[in-house]
Amino acid sequence: MRALVFDSRLSFQPRQSEPLHSLGDSLIRVRQAGICSTDLEITRGYMGYKGILGHEFVGDVVDSADRQLIGKRVVGEINVVCGRCDLCLSGLSTHCRNRSVLGILNHDGAFADYVRLPSANLHVLPDTVDDDQAVFVEPLAAAYQVVKQIKLDSNKWVTVLGDGRLGLLVAQALRETGAPVRVIGKHPDKLALCEKWSIRSRPLADIVPRHDQDVVVDCTGSAGGFELAMQMVRPRGTIVLKSTVAQGKPLNLAPLVIDEVNVVGSRCGPFREAIRALGEKRIDVASLIHRRMKLDQGVAAMELAGRPGVLKVLLSMD
Amino acid sequence: MRALVFDSRLSFQPRQSEPLHSLGDSLIRVRQAGICSTDLEITRGYMGYKGILGHEFVGDVVDSADRQLIGKRVVGEINVVCGRCDLCLSGLSTHCRNRSVLGILNHDGAFADYVRLPSANLHVLPDTVDDDQAVFVEPLAAAYQVVKQIKLDSNKWVTVLGDGRLGLLVAQALRETGAPVRVIGKHPDKLALCEKWSIRSRPLADIVPRHDQDVVVDCTGSAGGFELAMQMVRPRGTIVLKSTVAQGKPLNLAPLVIDEVNVVGSRCGPFREAIRALGEKRIDVASLIHRRMKLDQGVAAMELAGRPGVLKVLLSMD
Ligand SMILES: [Zn+2]
Ligand SMILES: [Zn+2]
Repeated sequence: MRALVFDSRLSFQPRQSEPLHSLGDSLIRVRQAGICSTDLEITRGYMGYKGILGHEFVGDVVDSADRQLIGKRVVGEINVVCGRCDLCLSGLSTHCRNRSVLGILNHDGAFADYVRLPSANLHVLPDTVDDDQAVFVEPLAAAYQVVKQIKLDSNKWVTVLGDGRLGLLVAQALRETGAPVRVIGKHPDKLALCEKWSIRSRPLADIVPRHDQDVVVDCTGSAGGFELAMQMVRPRGTIVLKSTVAQGKPLNLAPLVIDEVNVVGSRCGPFREAIRALGEKRIDVASLIHRRMKLDQGVAAMELAGRPGVLKVLLSMD
Repeated sequence: MRALVFDSRLSFQPRQSEPLHSLGDSLIRVRQAGICSTDLEITRGYMGYKGILGHEFVGDVVDSADRQLIGKRVVGEINVVCGRCDLCLSGLSTHCRNRSVLGILNHDGAFADYVRLPSANLHVLPDTVDDDQAVFVEPLAAAYQVVKQIKLDSNKWVTVLGDGRLGLLVAQALRETGAPVRVIGKHPDKLALCEKWSIRSRPLADIVPRHDQDVVVDCTGSAGGFELAMQMVRPRGTIVLKSTVAQGKPLNLAPLVIDEVNVVGSRCGPFREAIRALGEKRIDVASLIHRRMKLDQGVAAMELAGRPGVLKVLLSMD
């Protein structure tokens, strides 16, 4: 099969063999996949991962020990877990100590004709969710995770830092709580999307941080985002850290102590809620698609996705 | 009066005039005061503070609009607040937007013959708390703040990083929750104190971080403490950040996101609980006194307090 592989450098490899599925696994023919900032970070050294990239996908099960799944259109949770460690047994299986992670840690990803995942990771899609929406299930689930981790209501002032792929999903997900959500970003066209969704927005250049936000969600993917968040959050407020950055920069954490701030790291989230929200058309993802490219253009697609202001680049395998 | 003043450099100044007390204030003759890591950080540039240092003290009220207070032996809360801002009105007065802080921010401190504070900041001491114990009320209150901010019980594995002044108070305060508390430090004599209190301890050199602690309280006052805390805390666990460090170092916060860690900044705490605990002899502070010196030896006392492994240095004003 064909695949987009990172191994010190990124390359399209036309002649790899298909993955074998082992007991409990399903083999999925990928329809299309989305490029995420984590994929870009990996090519800059994040996680030290080498292998096939990609963890946002939709596809069809072509082989499985679970015969019911064969022929079904699915998305897949990305953490492949052991089910036996202390964290799995205590209900924290997304943090399994022996986990691999699709396209991120010891498990070949979905920028390929075929991908292999445990059948338990798969969610069969309803007809109400089309292939374009399906690619957004994984990142939208990550956005809903924020709602699971912190209490929001209409009395909470919430700022989402960053108008990129993740920020625009997080803003839509948080808005459903009734909280007055505001997006801070650098790109007029992205902030215009917010206006379309009736979500308030402000250009970064206009911001004077005042230590007055109850919650600041950092989706910038830049080391400076956290510093700005520390200046915007109110004393005893909450910073949600959504983005991973491969390289650290000097950070003075004293403001966290002085203002008794709560920082919440946030990663993967609930697939079911994301699928339901997409099926009910509560979240606009169509506006987030920047370009569709073919798998064999994968290297160029990654380059495009890494340019400032570019939203979702989709890779199709047909 | 005499005072220990920081103004780009530290000096003992024998001929300053006494502070005037204004309406609502009390004038206190200081008996003795304690040197804290924050005082040392200030002399390295923290907070940009210039003025009389010192915020841990016990003294006698010599003048006050509240006649009942005159002659009373007191300790004082260090945040001088406006009572009118949004934070004061919402019950977060220790975070008052217009606050000054004794010996830390726009308010002359207690390393002096006299100190001025609003009468509302003062707590009259019971006879069960002697002058040595009284100097520990402020830092012990800061230790009890951790108990107020996070839920602890006998099922939680808790590590206190740092066997310094604050770490040893935090460990004693947390132990009262029934949680199995362990102190990690560098100094055999400090870890021996833990043994004396039946608190488990381990030398830093013996530690292999395993991402298995429910709660890690960073009292190291060093930038490396937070990095070690990120390696020790379990996924979805909590890091309490107690120490302020003037200078930042490059920090990669990705582990917070990957492990969905909760970081809680923690500062000042409940004076009443600290006074009660000291009066009931639940907390051993006598063992934490390293040396007693006179105010006019203040420069040397600060130098001594800054040496590795030195616990509390007391300054007496008599
Ligand atoms: Zn596991
Ligand atoms: Zn105030």
